[in-house]
Amino acid sequence: MSAVVGRDYLHNAWYQAAWSDELTDSAPLARTVFETPLVLFRGSEGRAVAMLDRCPHRFAPLSRGTLAAGTLTCGYHGLSFNSLGQCVQNPHGPIPPRAQVQVFPTLERHEALWVWMGEPEQADSTTLPDFGFIDTTPASAKFRGLMTVQANYQLVADNVLDLSHVAYLHPTTFGDVLMHARMSIEGDDRTLRARWESKDVKPSPAYQGAVPEGNADIWAVVNWHAPALLVIDSGAVPTGSSRAPRDSILALHSLTPAGPSSTHYFYCITRGVRTEDAEFNAQLKSLAELAFNHEDKPMIEAQQARLAQVDLSLTPPLLLSVDGAAVRARRILGRLIAAEREIPPTRQVESVP
Amino acid sequence: MSAVVGRDYLHNAWYQAAWSDELTDSAPLARTVFETPLVLFRGSEGRAVAMLDRCPHRFAPLSRGTLAAGTLTCGYHGLSFNSLGQCVQNPHGPIPPRAQVQVFPTLERHEALWVWMGEPEQADSTTLPDFGFIDTTPASAKFRGLMTVQANYQLVADNVLDLSHVAYLHPTTFGDVLMHARMSIEGDDRTLRARWESKDVKPSPAYQGAVPEGNADIWAVVNWHAPALLVIDSGAVPTGSSRAPRDSILALHSLTPAGPSSTHYFYCITRGVRTEDAEFNAQLKSLAELAFNHEDKPMIEAQQARLAQVDLSLTPPLLLSVDGAAVRARRILGRLIAAEREIPPTRQVESVP
Amino acid sequence: MSAVVGRDYLHNAWYQAAWSDELTDSAPLARTVFETPLVLFRGSEGRAVAMLDRCPHRFAPLSRGTLAAGTLTCGYHGLSFNSLGQCVQNPHGPIPPRAQVQVFPTLERHEALWVWMGEPEQADSTTLPDFGFIDTTPASAKFRGLMTVQANYQLVADNVLDLSHVAYLHPTTFGDVLMHARMSIEGDDRTLRARWESKDVKPSPAYQGAVPEGNADIWAVVNWHAPALLVIDSGAVPTGSSRAPRDSILALHSLTPAGPSSTHYFYCITRGVRTEDAEFNAQLKSLAELAFNHEDKPMIEAQQARLAQVDLSLTPPLLLSVDGAAVRARRILGRLIAAEREIPPTRQVESVP
Repeated sequence: MSAVVGRDYLHNAWYQAAWSDELTDSAPLARTVFETPLVLFRGSEGRAVAMLDRCPHRFAPLSRGTLAAGTLTCGYHGLSFNSLGQCVQNPHGPIPPRAQVQVFPTLERHEALWVWMGEPEQADSTTLPDFGFIDTTPASAKFRGLMTVQANYQLVADNVLDLSHVAYLHPTTFGDVLMHARMSIEGDDRTLRARWESKDVKPSPAYQGAVPEGNADIWAVVNWHAPALLVIDSGAVPTGSSRAPRDSILALHSLTPAGPSSTHYFYCITRGVRTEDAEFNAQLKSLAELAFNHEDKPMIEAQQARLAQVDLSLTPPLLLSVDGAAVRARRILGRLIAAEREIPPTRQVESVP
Repeated sequence: MSAVVGRDYLHNAWYQAAWSDELTDSAPLARTVFETPLVLFRGSEGRAVAMLDRCPHRFAPLSRGTLAAGTLTCGYHGLSFNSLGQCVQNPHGPIPPRAQVQVFPTLERHEALWVWMGEPEQADSTTLPDFGFIDTTPASAKFRGLMTVQANYQLVADNVLDLSHVAYLHPTTFGDVLMHARMSIEGDDRTLRARWESKDVKPSPAYQGAVPEGNADIWAVVNWHAPALLVIDSGAVPTGSSRAPRDSILALHSLTPAGPSSTHYFYCITRGVRTEDAEFNAQLKSLAELAFNHEDKPMIEAQQARLAQVDLSLTPPLLLSVDGAAVRARRILGRLIAAEREIPPTRQVESVP
Repeated sequence: MSAVVGRDYLHNAWYQAAWSDELTDSAPLARTVFETPLVLFRGSEGRAVAMLDRCPHRFAPLSRGTLAAGTLTCGYHGLSFNSLGQCVQNPHGPIPPRAQVQVFPTLERHEALWVWMGEPEQADSTTLPDFGFIDTTPASAKFRGLMTVQANYQLVADNVLDLSHVAYLHPTTFGDVLMHARMSIEGDDRTLRARWESKDVKPSPAYQGAVPEGNADIWAVVNWHAPALLVIDSGAVPTGSSRAPRDSILALHSLTPAGPSSTHYFYCITRGVRTEDAEFNAQLKSLAELAFNHEDKPMIEAQQARLAQVDLSLTPPLLLSVDGAAVRARRILGRLIAAEREIPPTRQVESVP
């Protein structure tokens, strides 16, 4: 919606390419990141591999090939490649020196495959934020998914960063409990934290699991990590009660640009209560997916379609106080992208996110 | 097909945006006119409103919002707007000074909503032609509809202005009764009248309601009003009989450009005979919609597709005598659009419409 | 994939427009060749006609019209045209001098309609290669079809010219019998012959009809005629046996560019054994169409999609020995197209097809 639009990606960062259980050692998976077709699979010793999904011979997608013993064989003419992208078999003659497929650095952590689309030598596993809450939550107390939204990843991030939309877009589930919340923002040069707190309000259906009767204190804290990894810590306790860590619902919202107006939206939602209740888990999953797929997705896609018709230099968006976090996130991201390009960031117009 | 193509719209004119009964006070309606997304609804005191369908905050379509008590509330973050496009509520803080949505002049007349896409101060309700026959016809003696045709509005107007197509495109309904009709054209600087008359011919099915037995005198008069409002007065009487006003079928064909190759085609067809016969009305509606949707629409859309492949400066259309009215209409419209732009009209090549 | 891509067509050549039995004297057929919409039909005396599918009056597709007694009548306003494209009837007045539709030279031979998209005066029926095997094969010993592939015709030709793909793309039908075949290429300035021969191998299912038991000698010879007509002569005999002409399966693969990334792929497959066995014929047809539609087509279309993302000057394909015939065919075609344009051919980079 300003400095960061379209193809302005931050390349030197980890992006989620898949959930770990999407990868197998028998069927390659095709997925597009930054407009680049990738083939994802388990190579030798089960290692997760992200490779350019294009045979160097005649450009057939390698994802249409076969995978066996960690080796991917092109389904068109039979060249085989190992986990390093090296050609290990040419059934028609000697292996040509140029027979190499580009491989991207990967990291498998927190039940997810992360890929590094920038300079390989800069790939640093310590720069991935810690989402250890996913690892420590039992399977019956979490659910995850992926939806691909036809909109720029920044619009999806805006949606998570500005929870003031919840009362309007999700009235029957999350409702208006945050409508009159106190909101505060803090952050540094790569992260932001936006905190909403409502005291002594009637809980909406999404919070009635935690507080079935009487009023509640409700909170939601959005932790944003550049470029587009967000964790929401939210929950409710009976009015005036103290909070325990187990009262928090922790939700990862992990956004990966597929292209300038297409985003892979990975999510994983964990809880600390009723952790053995698989039926409750299924109910929550169904509720969340209804909200994500039928409320967030169509609105963000409609917003993207309108945005495509607007000249932002003539018609900047009208910013409200609730846009504070989204605007700060875009500024931080704009600076990081500019730094990556070694171009000094241009002066930011204050009123434009 | 020459002077007037693509995005050459006459802006300072009334265009139909909807039928009145499409508007409600509870559900906003989205419709695109001149590539501009509009949201249509009934505001305070039931007044018909046409507003830019884009929230100034984050550009969400307002048509995805909710409508209550004449106020439209954005479905994303809850800004509310009145019938004048003024923001009347910001749930997140004070109302910002720039919180205003563009509103277009409207006119509700002849059971339709008309919108003015040009200079608001030039909007003049007296310039809408009189279609009072719609108001005076009882509900059981008229029917109306809307179809959106994927073609330039001028191609749709050509279709109505040149009824010589009827024998070929509608052989089983209207048939060839006008094939050897006398045709005459008259007009002024904003209107045209093309008149077809056939004497003592066997009526086709569409005219057998009026003349069930024996031969008939049949007429069709197309009244064109710039830019693209047409009324066809047609009918049949037994050969040699005199005509009464009630013998006329009066049909409004009201064309609104949605975009350069997309047209909202509104129609309302009224009659003066068997005016209480609702079943006959339903039969006629079914007959007309068959012809419009399954004969006119696909042919005009196919013509548009072919036209998109042609360089008209190298391959002008081959004009026949029957194109006279369509050619004159395009010339008039070309002059009006040029005048609106204060550009002198270029010399018209005689053989090109 | 280099010299010949996109819209680089050889115009002065015969291209298949249809199978003869697709043409009737009662219903016109629409088909696009070289991005040019054609209407195909049987005109006077049953003569096959290929005409521009666009009425000169208002550009309606003539293929939406009616055909009677060798005359095609536009379905919009009724102009009629004969087999020479001349207007023979204008129901609305005298026939205008310019009322002429472009007609393309045609040739009906080998049960197919061939069209000449180049200079009409250069159309020479002797330049069509001889596919007489189609004529001499009884109906119960051949089958034919058409599939339209969303890829450049050169990619489809590559697929036929390089049979090394068979083992990988068609493993359950044709299998790997040619995997270790001796391959040789010969040719001249308009044709190529690529020969694969395997001695004493176990026949795959497609060859078990010819050699049900024991090992076989198997061959496949691809005869390419510029621009994109290919005949494959293939077969199997028991190891060490001599071959008779009847042992050959002869298959025409006739490629016609519909546009830069769309190809009409006509095929006709004939055999010399079990020529009266209609049920066997149906089995073979089903087998071939499975391979063509579900194995070749999706792979070639996926290859086209990847190719559209690649800058070939930066990322040339990695050529293998098996690409020899495809590379030579592209060079020949590049020279022919350059000669047609009277532009001297540029030096060919050796490693790029």
